[in-house]
Amino acid sequence: MGRIICCGLGPGDPDLMSVRADREIRAAKHVAYFRKKGRPGQARCIVEGLLARDAREYPMEYPVTTELPFDGTDYTSMLAHFYDHWAQRLSEIAREADVIVLCEGDPFFYGSFMHLHSRLQGRVAIEVIAGIPGMAGCWNAVGAPIALGDDVMTVVMGTLAEEELTRRACGCDALVVMKTGRNLQKVRRALEAAGRLDGAWLIERGTMPGQRVARLKDVDAAECPYFAIVLVHGRGRRPEFVAE
Amino acid sequence: MGRIICCGLGPGDPDLMSVRADREIRAAKHVAYFRKKGRPGQARCIVEGLLARDAREYPMEYPVTTELPFDGTDYTSMLAHFYDHWAQRLSEIAREADVIVLCEGDPFFYGSFMHLHSRLQGRVAIEVIAGIPGMAGCWNAVGAPIALGDDVMTVVMGTLAEEELTRRACGCDALVVMKTGRNLQKVRRALEAAGRLDGAWLIERGTMPGQRVARLKDVDAAECPYFAIVLVHGRGRRPEFVAE
Repeated sequence: MGRIICCGLGPGDPDLMSVRADREIRAAKHVAYFRKKGRPGQARCIVEGLLARDAREYPMEYPVTTELPFDGTDYTSMLAHFYDHWAQRLSEIAREADVIVLCEGDPFFYGSFMHLHSRLQGRVAIEVIAGIPGMAGCWNAVGAPIALGDDVMTVVMGTLAEEELTRRACGCDALVVMKTGRNLQKVRRALEAAGRLDGAWLIERGTMPGQRVARLKDVDAAECPYFAIVLVHGRGRRPEFVAE
Repeated sequence: MGRIICCGLGPGDPDLMSVRADREIRAAKHVAYFRKKGRPGQARCIVEGLLARDAREYPMEYPVTTELPFDGTDYTSMLAHFYDHWAQRLSEIAREADVIVLCEGDPFFYGSFMHLHSRLQGRVAIEVIAGIPGMAGCWNAVGAPIALGDDVMTVVMGTLAEEELTRRACGCDALVVMKTGRNLQKVRRALEAAGRLDGAWLIERGTMPGQRVARLKDVDAAECPYFAIVLVHGRGRRPEFVAE
């Protein structure tokens, strides 16, 4: 009886993977990973050169990504079917042997594996290996502390409505905006409205080949970067003295 | 001419250190780390068994921790002097050879190394190796996704005032409270006032020997755990469809 082992891969540089994930990936006989149709897949790219020659690969290709509006029932049911299918398939393989599932960043932090994780509960032994979240790779790329002292840090998705993004940007010390891409202009407007555009950084492909670190205000308005995160650093709010 | 290399150690399990940090630590000739006086030091404990036999160690012992109120001028000036001293000392060693500074979690995420980092700018080459933040080790210990979909995640320090903690707990999907310890009862009251105590977890020594995962509401009110983080999981807010 095997296990399903989801390996967090970290932000992209294979050297930033955990010692344990590195060991499991090199020893793996069965390796599954998500990818867009027709693409090599980001997770698979990170482990290039690490897999054993006889490892069997299972690319789990999303049936749909941005072609349909993601609140539609078609989108939802296609994805549900896709995750059901792979939960079944992976648990069948795990009857015989361990299966490694590759996951960028940290699996429990907005990771796609969670759609399989919930479906696999009680059906098979599951292990999850933590990874450095993508955002940590990005703030390391900037080279300054994202948060210090009593800073409040907020993580939001660029998919939120503009007004909510503005409100969130006003209400925190350090800010991380994930899922930027097509939302970048909205994110920029929201940060400008919050008075925080000047301190905002755009980090593309953090820790990966082709990494780019730029001030968001200097980024061309027409750009729609892939694998990008926007950061605004906290300034190290002084701890308050609280009588106890 | 050497460098100062700050190695993020991750949440505590040495197997969760990055491949690169592991390699640097095993090869290190000079190793510095913070600790409380009279304690072995958490960072040093994590690398037990990894250091070379001839590695020289530099325990940087805090002159003061909780004995003085931390908004006092005595506290501030003693710590400033302490960081000045070690910035000077480490840059002297780095004239000859690389110096490794050990740092729990991720150095750029509320890490103490940042007090040296700011003082060392322009004086010596500095490298920082990202690590898995302690909070990620904690949510992995619970075994459920901390955030999914369009969840908003907020990270706060338990040192904040009770009303601010309550307001923050009301205003997010996923919540991480660090620096609990002596603030635990205040954190508990704040979460109760926000209606979020039932979903809160206390994780002590996440990924380390003696790890403990408990529902916060079941934790004895007299406890003042060390290395503990409080988590409230997001529930995977549905992405909104935003016409573009």
